[in-house]
Amino acid sequence: MEQSKIEDLLRQMTLEEKIGQLTQITGDFYSDKAEERTGPMSQLGLNEDQIMNIGTVLGVVGAAECKRIQGQYMDRNRLHIPTMFMGDVIHGYETIFPIPLGLASSWDTGAFKEMAQVSAEEASVSGLSAVFSPMVDLVRDPRWGRVMESTGEDPFLNGKLASALVKGYQGEPGDLQDHFNKVAACVKHFAAYGAVTGGRDYNTVDMSEQRLRDVYLRGYRAAIEAGARLVMTSFNTVGGIPATGNRHLMQDILRDEFGFDGVLISDFGAVKELISHGVAADETQAADLSIHAGVDIEMMTLCYMHTLEALVESGAVDERLIDASVLRILQLKNELGLFEHPFRGADEEREKEVVFSEEHRAVARRVTAESLVLLRNNDSILPLKESQSVALLGPAAQSPDVLGAWSWRGRTDRAVTLMQGLREHALACDASIASKVRTTEERCDYFIPTESVVAESVELAKRSDVVVLALGELSTMSGEASSRSNIRLPKGQVALFNAVHQVNPHIVVVLFNGRPLDLHDIEAADAILEAWYPGTEGGSAIADVLYGSVNPSGKVTMSFPESAGQIPIYYDEDNTGRPYEQAPNEKYVSKYLDVSNYAAYPFGFGLSYSRFTYGSLESSGNGFSTEHPVTISVNITNDSDVDGVEIAQLYVRDLVGEVVRPVKQLKGFQRVALAAGETTRVDFELEENDVRYVHLDDSMHSDPGDFLVWVGGNSRDLSEPIRLHLE
Amino acid sequence: MEQSKIEDLLRQMTLEEKIGQLTQITGDFYSDKAEERTGPMSQLGLNEDQIMNIGTVLGVVGAAECKRIQGQYMDRNRLHIPTMFMGDVIHGYETIFPIPLGLASSWDTGAFKEMAQVSAEEASVSGLSAVFSPMVDLVRDPRWGRVMESTGEDPFLNGKLASALVKGYQGEPGDLQDHFNKVAACVKHFAAYGAVTGGRDYNTVDMSEQRLRDVYLRGYRAAIEAGARLVMTSFNTVGGIPATGNRHLMQDILRDEFGFDGVLISDFGAVKELISHGVAADETQAADLSIHAGVDIEMMTLCYMHTLEALVESGAVDERLIDASVLRILQLKNELGLFEHPFRGADEEREKEVVFSEEHRAVARRVTAESLVLLRNNDSILPLKESQSVALLGPAAQSPDVLGAWSWRGRTDRAVTLMQGLREHALACDASIASKVRTTEERCDYFIPTESVVAESVELAKRSDVVVLALGELSTMSGEASSRSNIRLPKGQVALFNAVHQVNPHIVVVLFNGRPLDLHDIEAADAILEAWYPGTEGGSAIADVLYGSVNPSGKVTMSFPESAGQIPIYYDEDNTGRPYEQAPNEKYVSKYLDVSNYAAYPFGFGLSYSRFTYGSLESSGNGFSTEHPVTISVNITNDSDVDGVEIAQLYVRDLVGEVVRPVKQLKGFQRVALAAGETTRVDFELEENDVRYVHLDDSMHSDPGDFLVWVGGNSRDLSEPIRLHLE
Repeated sequence: MEQSKIEDLLRQMTLEEKIGQLTQITGDFYSDKAEERTGPMSQLGLNEDQIMNIGTVLGVVGAAECKRIQGQYMDRNRLHIPTMFMGDVIHGYETIFPIPLGLASSWDTGAFKEMAQVSAEEASVSGLSAVFSPMVDLVRDPRWGRVMESTGEDPFLNGKLASALVKGYQGEPGDLQDHFNKVAACVKHFAAYGAVTGGRDYNTVDMSEQRLRDVYLRGYRAAIEAGARLVMTSFNTVGGIPATGNRHLMQDILRDEFGFDGVLISDFGAVKELISHGVAADETQAADLSIHAGVDIEMMTLCYMHTLEALVESGAVDERLIDASVLRILQLKNELGLFEHPFRGADEEREKEVVFSEEHRAVARRVTAESLVLLRNNDSILPLKESQSVALLGPAAQSPDVLGAWSWRGRTDRAVTLMQGLREHALACDASIASKVRTTEERCDYFIPTESVVAESVELAKRSDVVVLALGELSTMSGEASSRSNIRLPKGQVALFNAVHQVNPHIVVVLFNGRPLDLHDIEAADAILEAWYPGTEGGSAIADVLYGSVNPSGKVTMSFPESAGQIPIYYDEDNTGRPYEQAPNEKYVSKYLDVSNYAAYPFGFGLSYSRFTYGSLESSGNGFSTEHPVTISVNITNDSDVDGVEIAQLYVRDLVGEVVRPVKQLKGFQRVALAAGETTRVDFELEENDVRYVHLDDSMHSDPGDFLVWVGGNSRDLSEPIRLHLE
Repeated sequence: MEQSKIEDLLRQMTLEEKIGQLTQITGDFYSDKAEERTGPMSQLGLNEDQIMNIGTVLGVVGAAECKRIQGQYMDRNRLHIPTMFMGDVIHGYETIFPIPLGLASSWDTGAFKEMAQVSAEEASVSGLSAVFSPMVDLVRDPRWGRVMESTGEDPFLNGKLASALVKGYQGEPGDLQDHFNKVAACVKHFAAYGAVTGGRDYNTVDMSEQRLRDVYLRGYRAAIEAGARLVMTSFNTVGGIPATGNRHLMQDILRDEFGFDGVLISDFGAVKELISHGVAADETQAADLSIHAGVDIEMMTLCYMHTLEALVESGAVDERLIDASVLRILQLKNELGLFEHPFRGADEEREKEVVFSEEHRAVARRVTAESLVLLRNNDSILPLKESQSVALLGPAAQSPDVLGAWSWRGRTDRAVTLMQGLREHALACDASIASKVRTTEERCDYFIPTESVVAESVELAKRSDVVVLALGELSTMSGEASSRSNIRLPKGQVALFNAVHQVNPHIVVVLFNGRPLDLHDIEAADAILEAWYPGTEGGSAIADVLYGSVNPSGKVTMSFPESAGQIPIYYDEDNTGRPYEQAPNEKYVSKYLDVSNYAAYPFGFGLSYSRFTYGSLESSGNGFSTEHPVTISVNITNDSDVDGVEIAQLYVRDLVGEVVRPVKQLKGFQRVALAAGETTRVDFELEENDVRYVHLDDSMHSDPGDFLVWVGGNSRDLSEPIRLHLE
């Protein structure tokens, strides 16, 4: 539809119809069973006419159902404006990929793009037009349950991965209109939701405007620049004002500075929560604050529907503000081709072929293997040898709880458990060795393993060459509203570990969890493989790595602390006046008495079955300038007899800035495949643009002067730096 | 000296002489042994002429020594400008009072004033003219070592206690000139040093300007308004810029808004640390930033001396800026009467009488008892009965380490240990019962009690009616550069507790520590008495409370968390959009899965041997306004047969604000003495001024609307609120 026609349509709309567009409700309001609709409708006080005027629908899927609702809706809507279906597709639709914090460990923008493409294919054929992803909340506190949904602690990496997601969901500019296997992306949660105080979900966020802009907003901005068509507000405050009612954040920064012209949607209930926050006395004030902040769509509460009309009549709200919001929503629907094709991609027949296809599962299996992080591998206990007998023990050994939170449409009954993965691997190698992987008859509880299962585990461990102990958190222990104050393994699991360790010290721990954990309780393990929640193909991908068909290459994107007492811990901390790294043993430096400042596993850390060594850095010049970037080169050698992939990382430090600068910042990374014995020269380019940051006047520019540059395999173990001058 | 004469003097000074005034060095540069001077002087590259031109001296005391240095200095200084002695007098000079976090538990401004008066008497007679107190850093993280030096987590209370200190040190306006038993106070650390990230000393501070102004700056401002003549910069960054070079903080806020016209001094080495922070490339830039920020005195580094002259010559620094600083320093010396009386209060004879006098020790003993907090008292195990046999056990039982950090001049050999206190109490009652207090032959270690001392302890516990187990931290575990990631008791002490508990469950734990601890390891204790570091008279004051000669009345001013995983935990947290208190059992509220949001011991909590009950609140009207305050009244009853003191607390919540408001805020408190069985009506006045806060435009005003008001004995257990309207 042409823009002029959309504007015509807007002119024909009554104020009530306009306000309907600004509201989103869940699919149950449109159930084909009247009795299922009644409850929600009476709860919100909505009638049938009203719901046929509401602009968008949340969380309903299935081609048939979406088509049914859309058909009915278009019939009843006076101007035949189509509704639009959105849903929480975070790490896959039915083909579930690793949780984002897991897949981030691949440092593979290609893998993210593929995940988004697969998700878009499945979601769109099932009727969705928009997904609530990417989540770009920078996280520094493992207590927060939603770290599982983030890609970690680094703004640069988060931005790259979020951009890849946006491109994977949406395709090229214009694709949404013609390619109905693409869906609109929604950047969330704007802004800084990851910095909730104490890691407690929904809690206050407070930071300086400088940090907000320079650190926390970078990732969202990258995703917006990649073209994301929607942005979602966050539940938290930013500078004392809840994001959803924060005019400075949404108008000055998001709209004016970032130039975001898409649709801004509130998080679930967040408009009305302005009352709970105590910045609005009632629905009228909540609506007033939100509409002035520029929130186009109110999700699941009705402050707009109840009060905007009166606010317009009283002159408190200019109707042009509402028109602008409606226009953005209609434009989004138009960009998605919904006016011409209200059913869009929804197709019952194709749905059966596309969703959870073999092809999609193969993609998941491949990228899941990239997400696994080998944290420890003493005496090269891994990879396992097919000849070894294996006791597969622990609560996660046979558990189908491998999808993780935010896997709404994922089905655990179709997910590959670790036991299944190992058995299938063994069978594929040699039917005779399958019997070498044994597990307990009794399932092991995550919290209180019974005496009998512990005894059975000990017995099996005694009789096996190696123990694979699958430990971790239930998936309900991370995700939304799932913060933990204690980030250790449940005590019952530690007791199981200790009991098994007494009879067989050759323990490979495979961890299933949604956050960095304090792992000191299992320090005696020979190997630790961090498997996160690996998704649909989890068991298979883990087996691939445990047996060495895939050489692990993942590197953590969030620091694993020694203990909760180190929180927050992150590699790019600001330099202090009494720096620790230069004199860790002196008293008057910034440190704790009882633990080092370092993470147990730092940002960027992960082992391989290969051994990579880095040569000295070389640069194409002594400096760089706005016009002339510099190339930093290093030879990386695979000093082993196994082919592998190394994630090489470039870090930079700005030695003198107007504002205190981080001790180092990631400015480049590459996944480098290296055959056994191979040496490759890896080039990184550093531009002036890379070292810009937000100054006191909120402007983004660089400071001339000297910079240190390192390359290495993680944020701590780095080459000798070279010093480069910026003109 | 008249102001015009000071200005004359300034005009006679060379630039070099002026810059000398802007520098502070330690007393060892003035040692009367040339060989002791040589090291420091050559280290800083100073010669004799230069040190006789440097404006102030740090950390030298003793009337004789100060007089010797001053005499020599005045002789050598061309214009005969006196130097001035400053020192770290934090909670007493030689008569050591409880650490500030301990004394704060008294909620007694009178006690603070007395401590400051005693300190001023002792310090001034020993030659000091200024002390580096009050420390007004608001603290919310018990990991930070310097919480011991703070008065806690509440800005209102911190402000009141800091003001009392200022008045105690300085007396009435003008007193400094004539009353040489008064000293100038120095407010520190400006600003927000208490908010170091992760509780790690010297670490980055980052918060919104709104929070900085509304929460963190309130205490400093109160102390400045009380007339403090000096302010010290903090080590940390504020909004990305180290405080010491932060022009916005020092010029816009401290000078222009707060109207501070006294002397601004850097913390130790903080000017040169601008280089370490990475905001200055060299000493020149460090000096340039600091002098423009308005730092008058550079402590212990020589960036000013090395570079200011050239900066003036090059025009980068206007000499008038230096003149203004010098003038402030000369004015301070003049206010102190130093031009006429360069020796000021220093007096070798009076020093012997005044310092550590019986009178001062009696004050200390009295207020120390007020600082003790009874955290638990199951089955009224306390007070002890004289008839009971007591096993006094644990590492702190006989330890003289009762003074705490920042007690520089305190002598542990003259401090009363817990054993001495109990023995003396028993002796004073009845010589025959003294033998009923027994302790181990072997001293118990704080970390690794030997098997033999544990055995001896168990043996004594078996044979005694009650165990008094003295546990805690060494004083070196808190204070500057003494942050802990783990806030539990050392494991060896927990083991001792458990061993003793097996043979005698009647355990009264007396805690010596510098921070709120996670006390879940000693949950089985019948009673816990928090003694902090109680100072010189510690053992006596504790005995007074344990035996009931003094009824405990202290209440903690910093929340004691359930575990480190709850940090930061503080009572006045900002309201969220999904409030916990209203529905703690629902999933989608701001909480942890594994622990409540509540502190183990909340702000304002402390028990008494009396039992206090609160009646319903009454108010003098339904509301209040700018002109008309409202009186809130409550009857408090001592429902017991013991006289006692209750600290009644008034909390207010602003229901709707422009900025999200705390769930409650302390707005009044009273120490109320109540005889056994007595009921008293307590009135609190609430003014419009009390509910002002910093809005988005940085202005301080109130929002009209409704407020909830509670009164109670701690921040959690409160009366039913009443609702009052602000016009």
